[in-house]
This record gives sequence, C-alpha cells and structure tokens, in this order.
Amino acid sequence: MFVFIYITARDFEEARKIARHLLEKKLIACANIFPVRSMFWWEGNIEDCIEFVVICKTKAEKFKEIKEEVKKIHSYEVPCICSFVVEEGLREFLDWIEKTVQ
Amino acid sequence: MFVFIYITARDFEEARKIARHLLEKKLIACANIFPVRSMFWWEGNIEDCIEFVVICKTKAEKFKEIKEEVKKIHSYEVPCICSFVVEEGLREFLDWIEKTVQ
Amino acid sequence: MFVFIYITARDFEEARKIARHLLEKKLIACANIFPVRSMFWWEGNIEDCIEFVVICKTKAEKFKEIKEEVKKIHSYEVPCICSFVVEEGLREFLDWIEKTVQ
Repeated sequence: MFVFIYITARDFEEARKIARHLLEKKLIACANIFPVRSMFWWEGNIEDCIEFVVICKTKAEKFKEIKEEVKKIHSYEVPCICSFVVEEGLREFLDWIEKTVQ
Repeated sequence: MFVFIYITARDFEEARKIARHLLEKKLIACANIFPVRSMFWWEGNIEDCIEFVVICKTKAEKFKEIKEEVKKIHSYEVPCICSFVVEEGLREFLDWIEKTVQ
Repeated sequence: MFVFIYITARDFEEARKIARHLLEKKLIACANIFPVRSMFWWEGNIEDCIEFVVICKTKAEKFKEIKEEVKKIHSYEVPCICSFVVEEGLREFLDWIEKTVQ
C-alpha cells in the first residue's frame, strides 16, 4: 500500500530540511513543497501565518518511522503529519517508489 | 475518523472568510490556503481562472455541518467541498483536532 | 465513486496542456494547478526543481483512460499519476462531475 504524507512546516527552509532528511534516509521517494497561508486555533486565538506543506510519497509501512524522524527535527511541538492512501497509481511510478524506499 | 476537506474559493478573501467562519464555529482546527490556477467545464466552455483551495482539518462527523455553513457564505452556486480520510496521523496532532473541534 | 487524481508536470505549460487535454476528452470535470518545489531520488542523486501539480476531479472508473492519455503527452518517462478517493462531497458538486465526465 502506498501513501502520500501531508506535513506542515514553519518556513521553506524547514520544509526542505524535512524533505532532505527523509530522502537521505530513503524513507520517501519524492516530496512536493507547497507555499500556503495557514489559519488555526492555538492557545485560545485564531492564528494566521505563512507555512509550507510537504507532500511525501512513500509506502504505508514507513509511516511510523517517518513520524519519529520528523518529530526529531521539527520546530513544532505538535506538527501535522497525516497520511492518505493512494487508491490507484501508474504502475511504473509505484514501482519506482517501491524500489527507492528502503 | 479524521478528514481533510478540500474546498475551492473565488479569491483569497473568500478563502480566508470560509476558513475564519469554520474556525470561529469550532468546526475545524486548522486550514491551509493554496493559490491555484483552475480549468473546468462550465456552461459548454473550458474556463480558466485563478482560485484558492482551502484544506480544512477536522473530524469526519462534522462534514455535514461544514457543508451547510460553507454553502451559506460561498459565492459559488456549486462549490467543490470534498473530504478525504486520514489513514494515519501523529497521535498528538489528532488529539489536538479532537479537542479543538466541538 | 469519485476521485481526485494527483499528477506532477515539468512546468506550467505542461500542466495546462495535460489539464486541457483531459478536459477536452471529457475525462475530468475540473483541474487545479499548484506551483511546487520538488525533491526526489533520481539515478542516485537527490534532485531539486520546480514543478506543477495538477489535481483532477473525476469518476474512479476513468482512471485507466486518464493514465493512458497522460502518458501519451507527458514529457516524463515515469510521471506521478495517483488517485485518492473522495469520502464525502457536496451532492450538487458530485452530480456536476457525474454529468460533465463522459
């Protein structure tokens, strides 16, 4: 089973650091980084700031290890790390994830 | 069960208005707003315009109420409001959604 | 069943070309194009480049045909083409996909 993992980061540098760390450990095959504006409840106020979303492409079985690695290097106390199941994919692309992730 | 809800908006102001409205009602814990270029069929033509996508993080049971609240304030006749199930998530992050959404 | 299909493209022109091609063939009802920074393993190196992500909204049964059409016109040897199931959606929006996609 393949998943895309959605992770938010404080800024572009943190997003790249997370992506590079997971790539170097061969926990993901690819990451796409998106600039976003975020709004959320935090300590009784609605906060509004710029963030970056990192979408990581990998195998479902790596979720636990990815979660632990991201927590180690993330500047947030409670980072968003959520996975979504790929229903169908181009066979060659999934094979590439399969052989890239170790 | 936790979901991310994908909503499109006409412009950044509408995207923020939707996010703020849902946050104030404690229907979502967080929103990420993405700038996008959209292309779609509408009344027999392929339209092409700038839009904003709002990704809302919440509990699945809130979908119906969110749908109704968004329809009330959205400028579109038929807005895109679609949810996706979170397969796995960082426990502390899901707990934060759980206690923020009421 | 409805799905969002996540496709990456080399540049904005390729993203628009893919979206327009799938729209003209009535294989999708709508596409949202996102600018992203990508990092991935390719031939033993971590590559880093700008790409565009195309999110296509359609019916699950069209996945196979979309995959084949995208492969025909995509500049990549192994493009990312992955689908995600819509859990719930605004009824009118899903009806619009249903009648737009043929």
